[in-house]
Amino acid sequence: MSTPLVGIIMGSQSDMGVMAPAAEMLEQLGVPFEVTVVSAHRTPVRMVEYAQSAAKRGLKAIIAGAGGAAHLPGMVASLTTLPVIGVPVKSRNSIDGWDSVLSILQMPGGIPVATMALDGAQNAGLMAARIVGAFSPEVSEKLEAYQESLETKVMDSVKNIEENGYKSVL
Amino acid sequence: MSTPLVGIIMGSQSDMGVMAPAAEMLEQLGVPFEVTVVSAHRTPVRMVEYAQSAAKRGLKAIIAGAGGAAHLPGMVASLTTLPVIGVPVKSRNSIDGWDSVLSILQMPGGIPVATMALDGAQNAGLMAARIVGAFSPEVSEKLEAYQESLETKVMDSVKNIEENGYKSVL
Amino acid sequence: MSTPLVGIIMGSQSDMGVMAPAAEMLEQLGVPFEVTVVSAHRTPVRMVEYAQSAAKRGLKAIIAGAGGAAHLPGMVASLTTLPVIGVPVKSRNSIDGWDSVLSILQMPGGIPVATMALDGAQNAGLMAARIVGAFSPEVSEKLEAYQESLETKVMDSVKNIEENGYKSVL
Amino acid sequence: MSTPLVGIIMGSQSDMGVMAPAAEMLEQLGVPFEVTVVSAHRTPVRMVEYAQSAAKRGLKAIIAGAGGAAHLPGMVASLTTLPVIGVPVKSRNSIDGWDSVLSILQMPGGIPVATMALDGAQNAGLMAARIVGAFSPEVSEKLEAYQESLETKVMDSVKNIEENGYKSVL
Amino acid sequence: MSTPLVGIIMGSQSDMGVMAPAAEMLEQLGVPFEVTVVSAHRTPVRMVEYAQSAAKRGLKAIIAGAGGAAHLPGMVASLTTLPVIGVPVKSRNSIDGWDSVLSILQMPGGIPVATMALDGAQNAGLMAARIVGAFSPEVSEKLEAYQESLETKVMDSVKNIEENGYKSVL
Amino acid sequence: MSTPLVGIIMGSQSDMGVMAPAAEMLEQLGVPFEVTVVSAHRTPVRMVEYAQSAAKRGLKAIIAGAGGAAHLPGMVASLTTLPVIGVPVKSRNSIDGWDSVLSILQMPGGIPVATMALDGAQNAGLMAARIVGAFSPEVSEKLEAYQESLETKVMDSVKNIEENGYKSVL
Amino acid sequence: MSTPLVGIIMGSQSDMGVMAPAAEMLEQLGVPFEVTVVSAHRTPVRMVEYAQSAAKRGLKAIIAGAGGAAHLPGMVASLTTLPVIGVPVKSRNSIDGWDSVLSILQMPGGIPVATMALDGAQNAGLMAARIVGAFSPEVSEKLEAYQESLETKVMDSVKNIEENGYKSVL
Amino acid sequence: MSTPLVGIIMGSQSDMGVMAPAAEMLEQLGVPFEVTVVSAHRTPVRMVEYAQSAAKRGLKAIIAGAGGAAHLPGMVASLTTLPVIGVPVKSRNSIDGWDSVLSILQMPGGIPVATMALDGAQNAGLMAARIVGAFSPEVSEKLEAYQESLETKVMDSVKNIEENGYKSVL
Repeated sequence: MSTPLVGIIMGSQSDMGVMAPAAEMLEQLGVPFEVTVVSAHRTPVRMVEYAQSAAKRGLKAIIAGAGGAAHLPGMVASLTTLPVIGVPVKSRNSIDGWDSVLSILQMPGGIPVATMALDGAQNAGLMAARIVGAFSPEVSEKLEAYQESLETKVMDSVKNIEENGYKSVL
Repeated sequence: MSTPLVGIIMGSQSDMGVMAPAAEMLEQLGVPFEVTVVSAHRTPVRMVEYAQSAAKRGLKAIIAGAGGAAHLPGMVASLTTLPVIGVPVKSRNSIDGWDSVLSILQMPGGIPVATMALDGAQNAGLMAARIVGAFSPEVSEKLEAYQESLETKVMDSVKNIEENGYKSVL
Repeated sequence: MSTPLVGIIMGSQSDMGVMAPAAEMLEQLGVPFEVTVVSAHRTPVRMVEYAQSAAKRGLKAIIAGAGGAAHLPGMVASLTTLPVIGVPVKSRNSIDGWDSVLSILQMPGGIPVATMALDGAQNAGLMAARIVGAFSPEVSEKLEAYQESLETKVMDSVKNIEENGYKSVL
Repeated sequence: MSTPLVGIIMGSQSDMGVMAPAAEMLEQLGVPFEVTVVSAHRTPVRMVEYAQSAAKRGLKAIIAGAGGAAHLPGMVASLTTLPVIGVPVKSRNSIDGWDSVLSILQMPGGIPVATMALDGAQNAGLMAARIVGAFSPEVSEKLEAYQESLETKVMDSVKNIEENGYKSVL
Repeated sequence: MSTPLVGIIMGSQSDMGVMAPAAEMLEQLGVPFEVTVVSAHRTPVRMVEYAQSAAKRGLKAIIAGAGGAAHLPGMVASLTTLPVIGVPVKSRNSIDGWDSVLSILQMPGGIPVATMALDGAQNAGLMAARIVGAFSPEVSEKLEAYQESLETKVMDSVKNIEENGYKSVL
Repeated sequence: MSTPLVGIIMGSQSDMGVMAPAAEMLEQLGVPFEVTVVSAHRTPVRMVEYAQSAAKRGLKAIIAGAGGAAHLPGMVASLTTLPVIGVPVKSRNSIDGWDSVLSILQMPGGIPVATMALDGAQNAGLMAARIVGAFSPEVSEKLEAYQESLETKVMDSVKNIEENGYKSVL
Repeated sequence: MSTPLVGIIMGSQSDMGVMAPAAEMLEQLGVPFEVTVVSAHRTPVRMVEYAQSAAKRGLKAIIAGAGGAAHLPGMVASLTTLPVIGVPVKSRNSIDGWDSVLSILQMPGGIPVATMALDGAQNAGLMAARIVGAFSPEVSEKLEAYQESLETKVMDSVKNIEENGYKSVL
Repeated sequence: MSTPLVGIIMGSQSDMGVMAPAAEMLEQLGVPFEVTVVSAHRTPVRMVEYAQSAAKRGLKAIIAGAGGAAHLPGMVASLTTLPVIGVPVKSRNSIDGWDSVLSILQMPGGIPVATMALDGAQNAGLMAARIVGAFSPEVSEKLEAYQESLETKVMDSVKNIEENGYKSVL
């Protein structure tokens, strides 16, 4: 397999269910990636090493998912100059996800994190692909095809409703 | 001046004060950019044209700022495959900024927007530079220098407090 | 069937369960309507066409339902001069519905959307009927009868409780 | 002056500053209107009379503004079959406007209120005009001209920025 | 049975499950009461009559429960000089109860409502009994006994944990 | 002066500006009252004594104002069987008043507090007067006169607007 | 067993399920503790006695859990000079936990409470152990070993994912 | 001066105004302390060193203040076994302080932070003193004297109001 261009990390193995769609999206779009667990709070030294070596290892973007007082995306962003994409995870004891969202979104000036919707790992995968695609016609074309496929799915619904009535899809 | 790599757009000229730091950041980092007004609600056709032509014109990322029921970043993201960076603007009638934040952040699966903090235009400029920098050693080096300058400023505070006591900075 | 006076649209077929009560209400009140899927983010061009042709096709009001960063009602409102009624849908990844509500409610000056309660599609149907009824005595009478039926249902409860005690309805 | 088609009411004279833009918008669009104070809590009997006579007096829509535990729009909606447009007013002791918004927006099934943004009286005027315009080509044309004027204002900004640079509008 | 001193009303029969603890509390404390359905939005005229006749019929307090854009407690309070106790009901489409709470709590100056916790009907019954008890030694004594019973229950837990260890109550 | 029927207490002398309208309301309605400072956190023993002696001293209701993590109203309610009316004060470091509101409103079953709007001391005075008035025709009549005076003020606005136009009150 | 150094109290036996992890954590770290029920609202006198005697009995910290309008931690903090650790419990009728959090967190100046995350009893146990550990090398060493065990668990995940792929942990 | 027992750190020199009361409180209570700036995002390596050496240097507690996506308290807590006291700072671009509060409060299991009220630095100083005081009779006595001084201040208000009337303190 080719060198990963995107690193997908999360604070705990239990976040894998929420984060997997990022990996699936990148797989579908042909962007090589790696997946591992890096915890800001439980493996701070590993986090520093991961973030500081990321660019040298060829990564072009890092996707970091975390929940509650989510410090992973912001801390990683402070240790690299790569674009970091943050996924707020609605973890078990989260207050409806507000903690996850705000502790990733409200970064101070100087250290940006590209925040996705709550549990929005699929879009994190897409955002990483868009970053790669801005410089790779191959990936860019796959993104266009993907966007068209979204339209096609809607048009299938439209046809279905026109033919069978709106009650058929209830 | 060289071809812009980043487009900075906003829903209204009155947002320029909030959005200018994005431009200043890019200027400081040597990333060419363009600035204009594009309104999702008042110039929907112009918005479609701007977004659909962006990649062809050489842009690598679009920064879109909007407030209240902020539709500009999300709509632009649906009309391009470039990475779109959204800046929630705390406009005059906003409900403490929550409307701006949520209507940019909570994008549906398939259409990602890289959301910044409320009024976080400076970080939007940095995020665009990080995207460019992931593929440009020149920009990447400037980002590293910038990150070091942040550290230097903190260390100046540290020295000042050590020498003159914490009350000297009150 | 007669020419539709009300258009009911939603961002995704999966919203049909939430939006169907709008259609049922209009059916009950004898106001002709049409139902289809129009996505702001996945079919932006279709959205422009739908909104711009609505008045010409005889529609008097458009009901638009969407969830999360809900852009459909506001974008449609910017592309027509018809009254647009927005239904915030509490979609699966919504943050308790706040995103859906705020991104429809907090429209900027110049582009109004008549926002209903969260998942309030039944009231959207009623609001569309009230708009039509303001100019149609026939529909207005049906609305009055409907309003009386609401009262009757309450009075049935009252009688029931009076006769059988409040514990009988627990 | 011609018979009013729109009634603008508010809970207290002190809300007039917030509500006046509704009147100004209707004036600009040539839709006749009336303005008065009706309080749900301090003049409940007057409120019942106002609402119940509204349709007979020729009104086609009622705009009702109120703040805090705002009961006026919903109570009026329960006493008429006309479309009622609610404007949540951010009154002095309001909790950041949330009380005003939620006590107007979250109406129970059966009694719709078309809720506008916080302090969104201008859009309430526009929504009333859209309702009238759906059945009046004359008003509809004025709405189209208004919508074009919004676009023109944006394009003036665009030209200004292109010619003088974005810093000229800071 | 003796003349009711407390009236318990609610907007819909479906709220009876939430409101019944108010009745049970009054029953336990020997305060005569009545229970019925009165809807602000569906039976506005009945509501006016109920509230205006309450004092004459001998009621000393009214407990009113409602959910969503809850107008019943506030409207009743504007139509009587009796103390009105409001119970915010977390109805099915409520936004986590915030709408119910704020539209009862945030009453304008001049029209007070004694707001209870979300779904706090038991405390509404107690508050009504405290009002009656302030002028009735008989009821006041029963309230004291009730308060002591709360303490007794806690002390039973304490003894249980002391004897069997905290794990015995998991 | 006659024996106080209502006790007005607050956690800090700095709350007096917010709480004074409760006293003024009672003064206007001829209900004798007392005012003092009792802090749950700084004078816990004084609080216990005040609450436990209140009924014996002839009080019929206690108004307690507090801000932030506001424990005074709830603690007093646990130490008396009198009705306790809580006023959430928006103190300097309060988070927009939410802390004050929720820590008074959300009392557990068994210990009711009649919560008023944020900074709603005037209504607290009225609620205390309504409690007294439910058993005193004299006070009840004054409450009716007060309620009529509210209506009169609105009708004065109405007349003013009718005669001079709505722009005269801007 | 040795004299307890930490007291764990809660407002109701029904909170034991949420609070038990505090006890388990202290057990695991070898810090002696006691567990009992103390209710601010139902046993106010017991609460005063418990708090005032705590230091004399040898306690070094008190962990207090409560939900809704949670007054126990703050009241206990006002009656002792020991560090009090508050655990906001998401009780049954809590508004998503916000009431529990804010009524413990937002203590006025002068009376500190060390607030933990919602339902964060495990961390309360750890915080108590850290307080003891700051003065006890024995406990401090156990805390270090515990912290290392957290790291080990993460590294096990890392190894597992490296060997079997990220899909193996879905 | 004696070896510091408490370290006070903050993310930026601009937080000194909010954090100074922690130092003043410790000074007043005779607990030696140190003050400096440590930024999680701008000086991550310095942060690691500060936290890891804290216990060895004799510190018994660390007070860390930060605003927005506040990562400093939680990250420091993951790098030491000392008790860490977090002060959420309501920084300039904070969303009403919610981001600061939640990103400090909602720490995951295993890494506790003792969270204070928004801008609650004075209480942070007191909490640190309580921790020291639990093992130092000297500090404990000063804390008791401080707590009595709080009571005295309230009793002065009480006397003042009794003698001069409540209007004298308006």
